[in-house]
Amino acid sequence: MNQQARESAACSLEFSYAQTRAYSLELIRGLSAEDCQLQSMADASPLKWHLAHTTWFFETFVLGALASPPAPVDPRYKVLFNSYYIGVGERHLRAERGLLSRPSLDEVLHYRQQVDQQMQRLLGNPQQLAPLADLVTLGLQHEQQHQELMLTDLKHHFSCNPLQPAWRDRAPEQQSAAATARHSQYRSFAGGLCEIGATGNGFSYDNEGPRHRVWLEPFQLAERNVSNGEFLAFIADGGYQRPELWLSDGWDWVSQQGVASPLYWQHADQQWQAFTLAGLQPLNHAAPLCHVSLYEADAFARWSGARLPTEAEWGHAAESAPDLAGLFGEVWQWTNSAYLPYPGYQPATGAVGEYNGKFMINQMVLRGSSCATPAGHSRNTYRNFFPAATQWQFSGLRLARDS
Amino acid sequence: MNQQARESAACSLEFSYAQTRAYSLELIRGLSAEDCQLQSMADASPLKWHLAHTTWFFETFVLGALASPPAPVDPRYKVLFNSYYIGVGERHLRAERGLLSRPSLDEVLHYRQQVDQQMQRLLGNPQQLAPLADLVTLGLQHEQQHQELMLTDLKHHFSCNPLQPAWRDRAPEQQSAAATARHSQYRSFAGGLCEIGATGNGFSYDNEGPRHRVWLEPFQLAERNVSNGEFLAFIADGGYQRPELWLSDGWDWVSQQGVASPLYWQHADQQWQAFTLAGLQPLNHAAPLCHVSLYEADAFARWSGARLPTEAEWGHAAESAPDLAGLFGEVWQWTNSAYLPYPGYQPATGAVGEYNGKFMINQMVLRGSSCATPAGHSRNTYRNFFPAATQWQFSGLRLARDS
Amino acid sequence: MNQQARESAACSLEFSYAQTRAYSLELIRGLSAEDCQLQSMADASPLKWHLAHTTWFFETFVLGALASPPAPVDPRYKVLFNSYYIGVGERHLRAERGLLSRPSLDEVLHYRQQVDQQMQRLLGNPQQLAPLADLVTLGLQHEQQHQELMLTDLKHHFSCNPLQPAWRDRAPEQQSAAATARHSQYRSFAGGLCEIGATGNGFSYDNEGPRHRVWLEPFQLAERNVSNGEFLAFIADGGYQRPELWLSDGWDWVSQQGVASPLYWQHADQQWQAFTLAGLQPLNHAAPLCHVSLYEADAFARWSGARLPTEAEWGHAAESAPDLAGLFGEVWQWTNSAYLPYPGYQPATGAVGEYNGKFMINQMVLRGSSCATPAGHSRNTYRNFFPAATQWQFSGLRLARDS
Amino acid sequence: MNQQARESAACSLEFSYAQTRAYSLELIRGLSAEDCQLQSMADASPLKWHLAHTTWFFETFVLGALASPPAPVDPRYKVLFNSYYIGVGERHLRAERGLLSRPSLDEVLHYRQQVDQQMQRLLGNPQQLAPLADLVTLGLQHEQQHQELMLTDLKHHFSCNPLQPAWRDRAPEQQSAAATARHSQYRSFAGGLCEIGATGNGFSYDNEGPRHRVWLEPFQLAERNVSNGEFLAFIADGGYQRPELWLSDGWDWVSQQGVASPLYWQHADQQWQAFTLAGLQPLNHAAPLCHVSLYEADAFARWSGARLPTEAEWGHAAESAPDLAGLFGEVWQWTNSAYLPYPGYQPATGAVGEYNGKFMINQMVLRGSSCATPAGHSRNTYRNFFPAATQWQFSGLRLARDS
Repeated sequence: MNQQARESAACSLEFSYAQTRAYSLELIRGLSAEDCQLQSMADASPLKWHLAHTTWFFETFVLGALASPPAPVDPRYKVLFNSYYIGVGERHLRAERGLLSRPSLDEVLHYRQQVDQQMQRLLGNPQQLAPLADLVTLGLQHEQQHQELMLTDLKHHFSCNPLQPAWRDRAPEQQSAAATARHSQYRSFAGGLCEIGATGNGFSYDNEGPRHRVWLEPFQLAERNVSNGEFLAFIADGGYQRPELWLSDGWDWVSQQGVASPLYWQHADQQWQAFTLAGLQPLNHAAPLCHVSLYEADAFARWSGARLPTEAEWGHAAESAPDLAGLFGEVWQWTNSAYLPYPGYQPATGAVGEYNGKFMINQMVLRGSSCATPAGHSRNTYRNFFPAATQWQFSGLRLARDS
Repeated sequence: MNQQARESAACSLEFSYAQTRAYSLELIRGLSAEDCQLQSMADASPLKWHLAHTTWFFETFVLGALASPPAPVDPRYKVLFNSYYIGVGERHLRAERGLLSRPSLDEVLHYRQQVDQQMQRLLGNPQQLAPLADLVTLGLQHEQQHQELMLTDLKHHFSCNPLQPAWRDRAPEQQSAAATARHSQYRSFAGGLCEIGATGNGFSYDNEGPRHRVWLEPFQLAERNVSNGEFLAFIADGGYQRPELWLSDGWDWVSQQGVASPLYWQHADQQWQAFTLAGLQPLNHAAPLCHVSLYEADAFARWSGARLPTEAEWGHAAESAPDLAGLFGEVWQWTNSAYLPYPGYQPATGAVGEYNGKFMINQMVLRGSSCATPAGHSRNTYRNFFPAATQWQFSGLRLARDS
Repeated sequence: MNQQARESAACSLEFSYAQTRAYSLELIRGLSAEDCQLQSMADASPLKWHLAHTTWFFETFVLGALASPPAPVDPRYKVLFNSYYIGVGERHLRAERGLLSRPSLDEVLHYRQQVDQQMQRLLGNPQQLAPLADLVTLGLQHEQQHQELMLTDLKHHFSCNPLQPAWRDRAPEQQSAAATARHSQYRSFAGGLCEIGATGNGFSYDNEGPRHRVWLEPFQLAERNVSNGEFLAFIADGGYQRPELWLSDGWDWVSQQGVASPLYWQHADQQWQAFTLAGLQPLNHAAPLCHVSLYEADAFARWSGARLPTEAEWGHAAESAPDLAGLFGEVWQWTNSAYLPYPGYQPATGAVGEYNGKFMINQMVLRGSSCATPAGHSRNTYRNFFPAATQWQFSGLRLARDS
Repeated sequence: MNQQARESAACSLEFSYAQTRAYSLELIRGLSAEDCQLQSMADASPLKWHLAHTTWFFETFVLGALASPPAPVDPRYKVLFNSYYIGVGERHLRAERGLLSRPSLDEVLHYRQQVDQQMQRLLGNPQQLAPLADLVTLGLQHEQQHQELMLTDLKHHFSCNPLQPAWRDRAPEQQSAAATARHSQYRSFAGGLCEIGATGNGFSYDNEGPRHRVWLEPFQLAERNVSNGEFLAFIADGGYQRPELWLSDGWDWVSQQGVASPLYWQHADQQWQAFTLAGLQPLNHAAPLCHVSLYEADAFARWSGARLPTEAEWGHAAESAPDLAGLFGEVWQWTNSAYLPYPGYQPATGAVGEYNGKFMINQMVLRGSSCATPAGHSRNTYRNFFPAATQWQFSGLRLARDS
């Protein structure tokens, strides 16, 4: 990269940095310090922690990589706000993040400001920035990923309060409604020897590559995601009471947890309501089904005489038929593929190499993006992943079948 | 009671009410809303919850008993701030009290003000007050009991934060130090047919009575409570590694939980420190031992060639030898008596009858009071009670032996 | 003791030994090696283990105390068949006793024969026996205690088999029926300064003494134990659904475990049946209620407007009114007294001192004896003890009230 | 199939039936009824249960499909010996299989004889047999699968007995030793568009098909399985203490379970021993590593600078290079592929369709066969599957790497 290109890239990165960091603060607008401290389960972190951890990422991996790194804003944050990077040292216990009344939200916001100032100095120095630019980009993608988790976690935190508080007057969940209530059509794909995975042009996580060949048999993919109304028919047909529709582990899960609907659904006065980021709302039958586990998605597909797509089918379709409705911005779509390395996968070097690879077991892949995903964070090759019983993510499904 | 006596009693109650309610607020001085929301375990409630629950008690049991009760400040608080009174209806789950960012601390303080105003109207009306005066007194005792819990719980909440925050510059724990480091002397008691329990003059909880006769064999009681220094000798002598010193359940507890010291003790750099309400402090060898379970108290007594006193021995001694050092204001003193009803015990009628009686199983009695007990809440006949494994209360011990 | 007395005592002990040891074998008559290996929960041991452990007791504590002890029958049994005597060394894990297919039942019976031969040699030598006679008696009492446990445990083991096997054609449980179906009468006791506990004449466990004075207020005790029919009225009145009848821990137990009847009761085809040692049988309304926890006993008593007796009340009544029906041989009777040491209690010295004292916490006392107690093992001062939630013992209750 | 072919097939099936059924009995030769009742964990069933369940399979699915099925040998066995076939009705609780002392082993052997007689009548009637022949074959494969489990489970049962019993004088585990202790060589494969999966010629489970195309990048596969000696080097190099070598779930597993070696290894007197079906034996460094979880296999591979093969790579290699050492008869070889359906997979119809498909989640594929697999039960396309933490199967690994 020549001098001019480097300056232009730096300028663009400076703008992205400012924009991304500002959006995290926008998400907590209207929330109190008490709201930002809630932790309703070990898997869901307090919003205050997200704000601090994303800052810690820049301080540790970017500023920490400078020849003469600035003094840490507070050396105790090194342990407090490390999530799972063993290479970086000790970590505070995940399940106890909600017990940190200190540092206060004000102190965390001050921490953000301090690191932002240090980062701005770096972003304004193209030469110093150049070797670190990729890490800055990774940090911004990382912060966007946490922005979705902030909404996902907050929804769970608030759902535990009998007062059922709202984050906003209008729920993001309601903004996406399946284009039509008509029965979903299928699109056919011929398959054959296809390529999937990230090319390396533009940003991607290490787990999205390398781009590689896969053989696909002919298949069909639904034009849109499954709707709430369709899932109500599954419930009405006794779907949660019929073991033959479920994977064995899924049936155990349903039986032991007493699951009888997607997460956040409530049945009262003979109508269904759903808890949303705008509080309790009547269930919109035309909206895409959300907050189902893979077990529910799989049972619904079996009940429908269909199946879940594989990850490769989804990835190929997203490239060859980008006009399919609801690929992005509605719900993450469960695939029937385990989260495992692509052929030739190599984790990134250094501590950031812990980002993805070590989680490649016991999880299933979701593709697309959701109504909670920040703008600019969706891409064809994105591999999201969660255990099969996960409901609290913005997860739904799109049907597939053999041709 | 004649008119004048009634007015005087009302005036005194009004003063007690103002004083007791104000002290609860004094306890949170310097704490943030975030601090007041912490819940580190199901047994320990957020301070905000204590502030609201003690208010709920007056609103429900006192104001609610008026011929025309005022409208509730917020009808949703009826469920949210009920602790365990089944007679009053549904309750919010104990373990999830820390998930209530709403109502905010400000709203809870507003709730207190509203109820205080309503109570002040009642307290200023001697005729209306007369039939409810005993319930008001009960409510104040109840609030005092929660004031101790506020400090007890806050200590646990803060102890989970790696930053080890302090509540005050000077720790209540440090203010009581055993009078002397010399070996403790024993006082002899002749026993015989004694009376213990509340007489009914002055306030007492229902579980403290009726006053009744017990036969006591001659016994001896230590002049003071066991000190930290004495317990260090037990540790140094391998006390935690010698099964013959422990009750069977106690040995299981030590083994399975890996207990090797009283709660809040930390050994670092070859010296012992203790987490206190003033943060981490060097261990004061002369101070009374605190935060031990009954198992530890019992094992220490056995190691000392002594035993724990029974509740009746302690109660008799407190009446006949009130000059024993440290009966009150240092640590709650474990007895080797189970928390069971006195002969002839009858629970109070109505929902407040759930206060004590239903907990009379699987708990052991502690007597005296601690450095965290508010002034005016100590009495000879007070029966505190907790399961044998409890460490997080301000609990220590005083040795006894047969004469 | 002179020569003649010693010989006579030895002769009597030899007879007791033969009789007691034979009765253990009588209990397994008709059972297969497979039956004798069952372990349905950690608390209930296989019958084969009981047969071996009672033998181990003689080998370890009696033969092992000889000047030149015989070689152990199998040195590996020292660990395998130790129950909880830490002073004797390592123990095999209690919950894994059912995993010992080796040694086989035949080998365990051979072990019994070997030890019996060695014991017979000792019992035939009055001089050698004299210093060990008390330990032999303790061993026989110990074996009798395990004889009751053999039936108690076998009942639980068999109850887990859908085939519902029977031990005998006639159930011991059915042999005791409350004398009358009429409403139970109360007997009055004046109380005052009474003595309870073992005098030391005749055998008793260390926990039954020392005999000591207690002050009792006047009280009444039911003439007989509560019957199944009376408990059915409690169930019909919604007893298991009314929290106000229960101790707080009892209500949690009922709710979390879904308890809705005594253990082993089954409701089918609109009638109640009970699993017994003779298999499934129609419930006998006149028989004494059995297999209830202290929680159920306490709730029933509260529902009846009565209460459980204290241990001292029961003990005093058993001495002063031995004609009360069903004191022995029907069901163990829950008292509302915790299992704690009597004043002046000292555990026996040596490893057998672990027999009782270390269990004096978190348990409640039962008095009397049951239909499964072997002849000669009942006495006025016997203190049985179990945690409050225990149902699988032959436990019932007798009502008491204040005079 | 014409008459003659039908008779010949029936004759062959009759022979296979007799042989397979006899081998199950051979496996329990020398074991007592007590041995056959052991159940050391919920996952491992008693041998008596295996003997009964495999018989139940023929009685239910084969004899039960006859136009006029014979009366069941014992109607209660229908529930007792159903494993997981929901389509067939209720089942006895898996974790309580060890609590069935009744039916006795003798009764179960009698059950086998009765069903064998009924089956022999069917096998001798080619016309009646023809439509059921496939189900008979499935039943025999099913019994063979349980024959391996009998040894696998027995090993676990016996390992819980401190006496460490032996099944045979010579251990099956010791019979397979890696051909050479030299460093393993790699064989190269060109990959490309390959076919894997069962062709439908000869027996296979439904999950092994359909045969389908996959694209493989060039890869290498080790000539032999990893040996005990090689794994000792991993241990010596601190393999179990280095988080960077482990998947995140694997590290949690190691830390929480305190895993520090393969299952059944014991370190004493400065040498390693392994519990085998011939009791405790010195560890053979040249033998194939066995009883490791996928986590251990994966960590070892990472430490070696290699990786686990995918299922497709293993399957392709087994077809194109059947001379690779140790593909079969040593240890099941973990692959890094999740157990999911092949493209176009359809479960068999009827209740036997529950055999495989419903387990296709949260498990990883193992390929090959082990020293405990009965003769005739190994094939190229066999898909074994277990959760990643499973150690008690005869599981090892073969290294792979990219070309």
